[in-house]
Amino acid sequence: MLDALFKPRAVAIIGASTKELSIGNVITKNLQTYGYKGKIYPLNPKAPEIRGIKAYKSLDEIPGEVDLAHVIIPSQFVPQTIEDCGKKGIKAVIINSAGFSEMGEEGAKLQADFLARAREYGVRVFGPNCQGIINSDPDLKAYCNFTFTYPDPGAISVVALSGGVGALIMQALYDLGIGQRFYASNGNACDISMSEIVQYYGQDEGTKAVILYTEGFSNPREFLEVAREVTAKKPILAMKAGRTEQGAKAASSHTGSLAGVDIATELIFEKTGILSFTDEGEMVRAAWAFSSQPIPAGNRVGLITNTGGPAVIATDVLVDCGLDVPVLSENSIARLKETQFPEAALENPIDVVATAGGPQFRAAMDVLLEEDGVDSIFINFVTAPFTDTDAVAREIVEVSRQAKKPIVCNFMTDLSQERFQKTMGILKEGGVPFYANPSDAAKALGALTAYGRLQRRDIGQPESLAGVDAAKARSIIEQAQRAGRSILSATDVYSIFEAYGIPVARWSVVDNAAQAVEAADRIGYPVVVKVDSEEIDHKSDMGGVVINLKDAASVREAVEQMQSQLGKFGTLRFLVQKFLPGGRELIIGATAEPELGHLVMFGLGGIYVEVLKDVVFKIAPVTRVEAQEMLGSIKTAALLDGIRGEQGIDKEQVISLIQRISQLLTDLPMIQEMDLNPIMAFADAVYAVDGRIRI
Amino acid sequence: MLDALFKPRAVAIIGASTKELSIGNVITKNLQTYGYKGKIYPLNPKAPEIRGIKAYKSLDEIPGEVDLAHVIIPSQFVPQTIEDCGKKGIKAVIINSAGFSEMGEEGAKLQADFLARAREYGVRVFGPNCQGIINSDPDLKAYCNFTFTYPDPGAISVVALSGGVGALIMQALYDLGIGQRFYASNGNACDISMSEIVQYYGQDEGTKAVILYTEGFSNPREFLEVAREVTAKKPILAMKAGRTEQGAKAASSHTGSLAGVDIATELIFEKTGILSFTDEGEMVRAAWAFSSQPIPAGNRVGLITNTGGPAVIATDVLVDCGLDVPVLSENSIARLKETQFPEAALENPIDVVATAGGPQFRAAMDVLLEEDGVDSIFINFVTAPFTDTDAVAREIVEVSRQAKKPIVCNFMTDLSQERFQKTMGILKEGGVPFYANPSDAAKALGALTAYGRLQRRDIGQPESLAGVDAAKARSIIEQAQRAGRSILSATDVYSIFEAYGIPVARWSVVDNAAQAVEAADRIGYPVVVKVDSEEIDHKSDMGGVVINLKDAASVREAVEQMQSQLGKFGTLRFLVQKFLPGGRELIIGATAEPELGHLVMFGLGGIYVEVLKDVVFKIAPVTRVEAQEMLGSIKTAALLDGIRGEQGIDKEQVISLIQRISQLLTDLPMIQEMDLNPIMAFADAVYAVDGRIRI
Repeated sequence: MLDALFKPRAVAIIGASTKELSIGNVITKNLQTYGYKGKIYPLNPKAPEIRGIKAYKSLDEIPGEVDLAHVIIPSQFVPQTIEDCGKKGIKAVIINSAGFSEMGEEGAKLQADFLARAREYGVRVFGPNCQGIINSDPDLKAYCNFTFTYPDPGAISVVALSGGVGALIMQALYDLGIGQRFYASNGNACDISMSEIVQYYGQDEGTKAVILYTEGFSNPREFLEVAREVTAKKPILAMKAGRTEQGAKAASSHTGSLAGVDIATELIFEKTGILSFTDEGEMVRAAWAFSSQPIPAGNRVGLITNTGGPAVIATDVLVDCGLDVPVLSENSIARLKETQFPEAALENPIDVVATAGGPQFRAAMDVLLEEDGVDSIFINFVTAPFTDTDAVAREIVEVSRQAKKPIVCNFMTDLSQERFQKTMGILKEGGVPFYANPSDAAKALGALTAYGRLQRRDIGQPESLAGVDAAKARSIIEQAQRAGRSILSATDVYSIFEAYGIPVARWSVVDNAAQAVEAADRIGYPVVVKVDSEEIDHKSDMGGVVINLKDAASVREAVEQMQSQLGKFGTLRFLVQKFLPGGRELIIGATAEPELGHLVMFGLGGIYVEVLKDVVFKIAPVTRVEAQEMLGSIKTAALLDGIRGEQGIDKEQVISLIQRISQLLTDLPMIQEMDLNPIMAFADAVYAVDGRIRI
Repeated sequence: MLDALFKPRAVAIIGASTKELSIGNVITKNLQTYGYKGKIYPLNPKAPEIRGIKAYKSLDEIPGEVDLAHVIIPSQFVPQTIEDCGKKGIKAVIINSAGFSEMGEEGAKLQADFLARAREYGVRVFGPNCQGIINSDPDLKAYCNFTFTYPDPGAISVVALSGGVGALIMQALYDLGIGQRFYASNGNACDISMSEIVQYYGQDEGTKAVILYTEGFSNPREFLEVAREVTAKKPILAMKAGRTEQGAKAASSHTGSLAGVDIATELIFEKTGILSFTDEGEMVRAAWAFSSQPIPAGNRVGLITNTGGPAVIATDVLVDCGLDVPVLSENSIARLKETQFPEAALENPIDVVATAGGPQFRAAMDVLLEEDGVDSIFINFVTAPFTDTDAVAREIVEVSRQAKKPIVCNFMTDLSQERFQKTMGILKEGGVPFYANPSDAAKALGALTAYGRLQRRDIGQPESLAGVDAAKARSIIEQAQRAGRSILSATDVYSIFEAYGIPVARWSVVDNAAQAVEAADRIGYPVVVKVDSEEIDHKSDMGGVVINLKDAASVREAVEQMQSQLGKFGTLRFLVQKFLPGGRELIIGATAEPELGHLVMFGLGGIYVEVLKDVVFKIAPVTRVEAQEMLGSIKTAALLDGIRGEQGIDKEQVISLIQRISQLLTDLPMIQEMDLNPIMAFADAVYAVDGRIRI
């Protein structure tokens, strides 16, 4: 439990300072200014008081109990101070000081030192190299942070790896008038992790939604489990930066921990139903809609507008966001005809025209609320100077208060004019989320709608699959491990596939030409012959693969040719396999992701993967629903169904194949990389025709 | 010249009203409030004065000359009023009234009527069903509009088809503190067109950049010519809404003129070097950067940040926008080492750390200004409460004033606090464009950089091509026109192609099997035989195409089979053509676009066009550079170069082919549709093997 951190009854500031612009002074000031209801104990070796509060020379001098201490002293003194905190019975510390793991080896040693002492005394550590936390609860008002925004109480809790982005989000929410519950930015996160904070927010009744910023997770599996738990109860809006190679490099430079573009974080968001953003402004604006509006039951939106062009822009953006702008029912149109001006357009968007007042807006909203074909309402409201704009705002508020469908408003006005400030005040008081332009408003409604989709999506549980001999596969791998082999032989690979019921083109591994012919006779022509050697990397380029061999003579010749050409690599073995031309080439791959499990990749083979990079990923275990989504979400999905009169492939078998591979990976975590490339898919069958496993 | 409209010395308001919220009153008030320096003549049949200004009963009574009249009266009275305006010598009218072409046939008649009278008297008409214009020139201050924002003088001129979006843009510029020069929103645009307004802005010395909003052009060719002229002198930032099918439907409903998704407008923007946006907020924020910063010479950006995470976000977005974040030179890094704090990160982004003050920011900016490998500077500036933020702002301003590289700033602060308002004031006064979050700032710099690319791009002129017999092609088409045929025969199509030097697989049109065999012998086997009949639409499905015929007997059989199966369609002719397997299938198509010319399409044939829709378009005439861009910009461009050891195709020949087709379309505007599908492309040759022309 992080209560000592987020709900401290007394805070010590170790390193409080009389200097106006120092962090130790700013934190003291923030606690004062925000109106902290607990006790503040500044520590300073010389000053008798800091900002009018009695200061102490050491923790021993502090008369009462302390839940939380800020530590703002040079890094080399931190370990001893943490021990002192432990002795004082302090339960949590926020180490604002920098100079630890982010500064190389020496800093990392100091960090290990203070962490060991903290564990000894049961002190939880937040940071180091961090901002701190805020709890806006009017009964506590804990501003344990050196930032400059004073958030209003509310229901959105923020956690950000980067203090800069955290402060930005906090400020943006504040600017929009959105209240906040908790705020946390934990820097190096050596002990209290983002996962733990998100879990705490999940359990907090005052938190209705969570906003999260990260550049990756040190323990992604832990986060995945926590996120699954929390998203079942409340929405998480998240942004992951370092998406591009150069962005990842920038991230790695400031956190000192991550490198390379990771796709796993986005996949975790997808798997757990976290709504992902790439623009921090969009995320914060969406939060406004989440803080007051219901989640729409579907993607059909009705628009009301008193000006033409902004409705066109809104429609474009809503459609971009996956919403539908349906034709209204005849009944709705008839009702509109009764209530709207003659020049109004009674379609969707409903153009009530610039002269529309409260009654026209109200009637249009009522129609959309009762229209079965509409799940949400978008309003363009320009404050036409010849209308009673306050009356319009009042109607929007009144409808929004009782509506079961979300209402989002694009409110176009000049707020430097008092009369329009008043109109805005009515919307704001009334809890209507409004934005200054149609694209922003449409994206906010798009986010609500996307979240509704995530909420309704149930990926289910991994299925238990029949015909799996996990023990056999495990023993093959263990044997390879004992033999010190990291690339498995063809025999091993195909035997493992067979143990998991993965269909493989008929095969046999042989030692010489005579055996090859015998195997080919048994398998049936045409066949492929491939050299089976760990030593030879690019078999095709080396002449180690010959396809479409139609008779015994060709098989013999192929084997003999390889023996003479590739003999220098040692004694060779050969894989003889049924040749299966004419199918659709698929590819399924997997890589182990540190601290997470495996990422499974699916796509069309050949040029589709090479030129178009048309592949999709999921985190194992992959459920049936997720496997279906994989087939449906490649750009060339139509090819799986067959085009130009061709037959499609057997998708059910591919879905089963993906699940079997997922099971295999889950059972055998020592697999580092696996490729089935290609898989040949036909209308009635699917076969892996080449496979590779690295452990 | 539109001086009477944009620089009126006297304005009459026909339909001025004493009623506070009426348009006629609001326009009078706006002229007064904005401080119009000319004469205001309200017209009202009864009231002696409007808002304290003497009112007139008729135009005759007005003592002086009038340049411009607002017309705000019921539509049926407008034609006579326009005639009266003409008699009074008024040079331009703004018809605010609605009830014309947007309201069906009767309205259209009224519009035709007043327009005829206006032409008779030489009165230029702005509107009808429109807002009006604003000229912020301090010497004139003409606010001939009923909107509510009072723009500051400046150098950006705005033109918007939609008044709602126009007002939105004006307000957003105002909110950002960006001055404006002219504003115009011309509604139905029955006389003065958007093109004419843009041309006027182009000639206006006070206008440094143009912002344009449209949902399509009624005369796109005219706009194309004007835009080409204006973009040579100043940037045009534009947004076209109605991009989606549902958005286009919404647009069509409020303008009553357009329908269907048009791609031509975006192509015009591309061809003329207009910077195109899909988000109005982004466009306006970009305008701030355009209004004060130089255009970067390239796409390499140096970042300075005093906080980690926002630099990661900025890097991601800058990379998304096509910018590069290069490694700094050793010299720059050495100089940074001398000036920055020890904990600073001396990479790109340069993290000067949160404690950095004016000197650290200044030194970092100086290094980037002198760094040859950097074209622009991005600054993340969070107002850390323990630093002298004013000093930082002053340094940014000072550098920005002398810099030849653009500087864009993400300024993260709480403006509800006075000290930070002061810091902001310094940036604002200093003309530094700043934004509240890194994505917004990065996109603004992205827009500047994209515009630099557009500016440096020279598409050149259409080439004059050798070996073109335009007269022959024209006579073939004229003959078909005389015969009343809209689909050309194979003979016609291939003859036209040959007249333009478009390589065609050897072909012959014959009447019977004997002639077919003779032709095939001459052409050389294998051949294709296709039935040549206007009556038969889906030749392949009807058994009208047989490929890969290897000898005389097969040719004879194919023709006889078609005769027996398809004889019911009348006397048949047959196309015998060289069969060319194994090449890369390409497709080139063209459609006539009303009032514009032809759109030329290029892509890979077969599944690439069917499943991936991987095609690109240009407006004819297509220059050599544009043809090259077409080949380079399809998603599967890599296939043209050959992959997996295959040879690539002869791209030069395809480029020449596109230019020849473009020439053909330009010479023969009566062509409505043309397809070359497929074109077979090889390493050393390219042939059209099927063609279709509709006139």
